Amino acid sequence: MTLLVVGSTAFDTVETPYGVADRCLGGSSTYFSLAAAMFADVRLVSVVGEDFPDEHRQVLQEKGVNLEGLEVKPGKTFTWSGRYSADMNDRDTVDVQLNTFGEFNPKVPESFRNSPYVFLANGAPSTQASVLDQVESPVFTVADTMDLWIETQKDDLLALLERIDGLIVNDQEIKMLTGESNLIRAGRRALELGPKLVMVKKGEHGCFLFSHFFQHALPAYPTEDVRDPTGAGDSFAGGFMGFLAGCDSLSLWNMKRAMAYGTVTASLTVEAFGVNRLAESRRSDVERRYQELIQFVSI
Amino acid sequence: MTLLVVGSTAFDTVETPYGVADRCLGGSSTYFSLAAAMFADVRLVSVVGEDFPDEHRQVLQEKGVNLEGLEVKPGKTFTWSGRYSADMNDRDTVDVQLNTFGEFNPKVPESFRNSPYVFLANGAPSTQASVLDQVESPVFTVADTMDLWIETQKDDLLALLERIDGLIVNDQEIKMLTGESNLIRAGRRALELGPKLVMVKKGEHGCFLFSHFFQHALPAYPTEDVRDPTGAGDSFAGGFMGFLAGCDSLSLWNMKRAMAYGTVTASLTVEAFGVNRLAESRRSDVERRYQELIQFVSI
Repeated sequence: MTLLVVGSTAFDTVETPYGVADRCLGGSSTYFSLAAAMFADVRLVSVVGEDFPDEHRQVLQEKGVNLEGLEVKPGKTFTWSGRYSADMNDRDTVDVQLNTFGEFNPKVPESFRNSPYVFLANGAPSTQASVLDQVESPVFTVADTMDLWIETQKDDLLALLERIDGLIVNDQEIKMLTGESNLIRAGRRALELGPKLVMVKKGEHGCFLFSHFFQHALPAYPTEDVRDPTGAGDSFAGGFMGFLAGCDSLSLWNMKRAMAYGTVTASLTVEAFGVNRLAESRRSDVERRYQELIQFVSI
Repeated sequence: MTLLVVGSTAFDTVETPYGVADRCLGGSSTYFSLAAAMFADVRLVSVVGEDFPDEHRQVLQEKGVNLEGLEVKPGKTFTWSGRYSADMNDRDTVDVQLNTFGEFNPKVPESFRNSPYVFLANGAPSTQASVLDQVESPVFTVADTMDLWIETQKDDLLALLERIDGLIVNDQEIKMLTGESNLIRAGRRALELGPKLVMVKKGEHGCFLFSHFFQHALPAYPTEDVRDPTGAGDSFAGGFMGFLAGCDSLSLWNMKRAMAYGTVTASLTVEAFGVNRLAESRRSDVERRYQELIQFVSI
């Protein structure tokens, strides 16, 4: 089935202990799309400036991502620059230039409006809600968010939470959102806010899935060579949503499998700078790691 | 089979956001013994002062722990006092009085020397080595250690590592020991130092098992009510070693199961102050949580 993603496209400049990548292809919708496209037909809605090169567009097209919703506006593409700590667990944002993304007003093309699976990448909750107004009758809608929106637009965010099926956030964000310092309590509180599913990303510590009927946790894939963690969370979401859209089933069994596919997809992303490793990866790479992950966690 | 543990017995004063426990029964060998005794016959070697009350002794005896090696020396029992942060992930040591434990020179009773399973709880590596000199031909020997010994007695620790089968440490300790900031690299480096197995405790993030032939990771049991994390690591070790000693098999399958039993045992400990919950728990409580954990992690 088709999967609609709405989010940012960016030029990222990233510094890690392994080196520097300058103005490489980045953005939440980019990582998500490249990950999800290994499993399903992805429709992208995003915005770039006139400086966005064809080579970046080709990276997405080669994976089969439908770019009909990639708007080109006068001006420059969103740029982000960050620096990671030695253990890769912390990062400082060095510079952000929102440019054309600053007034992103997503327009879902007519041909995209029947998408059954929808992912609202990190953005202002009111902007995310405007996407929901434009899609017809999605089967499964998941949103990401961040500390900024929890702090500054909480009412809009709470209104959004009542309209979506799943929320995908990291452990700091869910604790901030719910005011609970224990992750299990935070997950249960978040379910009371509307979503039927809450996925929590814990980076190197894996991920957690909360629903009213079951909980599930999974360690991260054991990666020795973390070179650039940028985009890991969006790649996780892409693997998760892509797998569900690809098999078009929302059973408990598939939810757990989707968490594992998200985990594996994120592990590929972090092994190279930018989207390089993810763009090169094929479904067979993902399947091999999936089997390894199953062995790794099975008792 | 029998399981020998050598380590500290203490009075703990603990402050957490849930309250304060004053001079309750604590110490590494205590938590370990109460956990392991649910699975195997435990033989304890430790030291206390003349102030150690019969009621504490009874807690251990009621679980069937053999106290023939619990030496009573003139003076006071080791006391430790600590305070946890709001999220329970950090703690400050408020006060330590080593007292009789300060010159702990473990004497393994004659009747204990044939123990096939041996756990050397956290202590000076030279002291831990002196225990190995006193046991006849153990089948499986595991040691714990801490940052203090890695910093101040590294040569003794490295010598010990060549004599043991397994090392059990937390994620900070293994990174400090090996100088690797990536956990997977750190685990592999630790294996090069001697132990055939390296178990890494990550608190609320679960645990990791490294060997030359396989890796395994497990999330923590999803506990909502963490009231006092003291002793979680020693309870994990007790569940792990107790299970292995109880079924007397060191297969890959059993190693993974032992990690799960350690996880479950630790989850009981943290739900009450001191050893209370652990002392009350029965094997049936552990088995119920074990089944829940299997469901929780299975894909």
